[in-house]
Amino acid sequence: MGVIDDNLARAGLVIPTPAAPVANYVPAVLTGSLLVVSGQLCFQDGKLDPAHCGKLGEDVSIENGQAAARLCAVNLLAQAKAALDGDLDRVKRVVRLGGFINSAPDFNALPQVMNGASDLMVAAFGDAGRHARTTVGVAQLPMDCAVEVEAMFEVVR
Amino acid sequence: MGVIDDNLARAGLVIPTPAAPVANYVPAVLTGSLLVVSGQLCFQDGKLDPAHCGKLGEDVSIENGQAAARLCAVNLLAQAKAALDGDLDRVKRVVRLGGFINSAPDFNALPQVMNGASDLMVAAFGDAGRHARTTVGVAQLPMDCAVEVEAMFEVVR
Amino acid sequence: MGVIDDNLARAGLVIPTPAAPVANYVPAVLTGSLLVVSGQLCFQDGKLDPAHCGKLGEDVSIENGQAAARLCAVNLLAQAKAALDGDLDRVKRVVRLGGFINSAPDFNALPQVMNGASDLMVAAFGDAGRHARTTVGVAQLPMDCAVEVEAMFEVVR
Repeated sequence: MGVIDDNLARAGLVIPTPAAPVANYVPAVLTGSLLVVSGQLCFQDGKLDPAHCGKLGEDVSIENGQAAARLCAVNLLAQAKAALDGDLDRVKRVVRLGGFINSAPDFNALPQVMNGASDLMVAAFGDAGRHARTTVGVAQLPMDCAVEVEAMFEVVR
Repeated sequence: MGVIDDNLARAGLVIPTPAAPVANYVPAVLTGSLLVVSGQLCFQDGKLDPAHCGKLGEDVSIENGQAAARLCAVNLLAQAKAALDGDLDRVKRVVRLGGFINSAPDFNALPQVMNGASDLMVAAFGDAGRHARTTVGVAQLPMDCAVEVEAMFEVVR
Repeated sequence: MGVIDDNLARAGLVIPTPAAPVANYVPAVLTGSLLVVSGQLCFQDGKLDPAHCGKLGEDVSIENGQAAARLCAVNLLAQAKAALDGDLDRVKRVVRLGGFINSAPDFNALPQVMNGASDLMVAAFGDAGRHARTTVGVAQLPMDCAVEVEAMFEVVR
């Protein structure tokens, strides 16, 4: 158990087995000191909770949106851990999160929703978890998920 | 003819002359070992096929969306080739594709559409073509294109 | 005053005090020679002009959209300047802008709007301001802003 695993355990979080990609792409690519992780959806135990599907401002409450964003972040950590041979302590910095919120045309409380993902990164990595971030509301997401989040990490090779 | 050009020729693909950007930006920027390529639209021979314009889930079939995504990928390769002095063998890895699908609010088969781009990268580069990927459905794209794809490559300088 | 500050002054531009992030993230992260800046909104003097809020193709004219994109670019420079200890001359290259336009489903003059941001980068940095760019129309943006722009710069550490 590394330091980051300990932090996550203290926050009551278990990193799940990462989801396999469903097409001709991979969950993460390491290039130089950057780990680029594919957009992750709000799956939990391989399933989508209906409460985490649909549009913010229409079907999904802000609280459920935040929970969905948090799940995306957990899945990003799962993919990063797998790409780093199981050692999240090799993460030096969360560089960037890109947050995509499935939004009704008039829903603009997007940052609050995305905080579900950002807060988890800071819970896991402390100050090294503070990242640059872009949050936008999109017309749709794969499988009608409420949230998708992608990430870039700086890592020790 | 390099190895990648051969792969593309075997797949029946000719890399077109890259499109000139229409404003104060450039098709691609090389920084360190990263080549960042601007979002490419589904132009073919300088024109947009009406079958590749409009929204998935409304005007555009999944098959036409896949063809549009493939064209975006071809145009990414054209820009990469131009930025690499004509030598696609300098690509070490396709690091990331970002796929934006012009989507009706209820269309969520976005990954299938994006596979048109991902499959082409693997046809061209083999395992080095397997990339991290983010796919989202957007409200609109330039010129009402059905698909836009951006890319990041790791290259030999 | 550096060279870039002079360029901006000649263009009649004063770089504002950067906005503080409103959640668990930071305005910019430096990793290697890359400076990754969070998506910036079209704030001016800490406020949003109602003319810069709403959707292109519905509430916001192309001219106001361009002005909003320009403000996002100014705010990106403010964040970059703060992250570089006040010295924009440390920017070697604007690598990439990602432009998100709050769009009605049928508005596709997105590149014209985004030019407001791109033109400012070239006014500031000359040829080093020419960047790779991706522009998409999204369903919503934080606080109903008309435009959000993110950036990646290559910098001298």
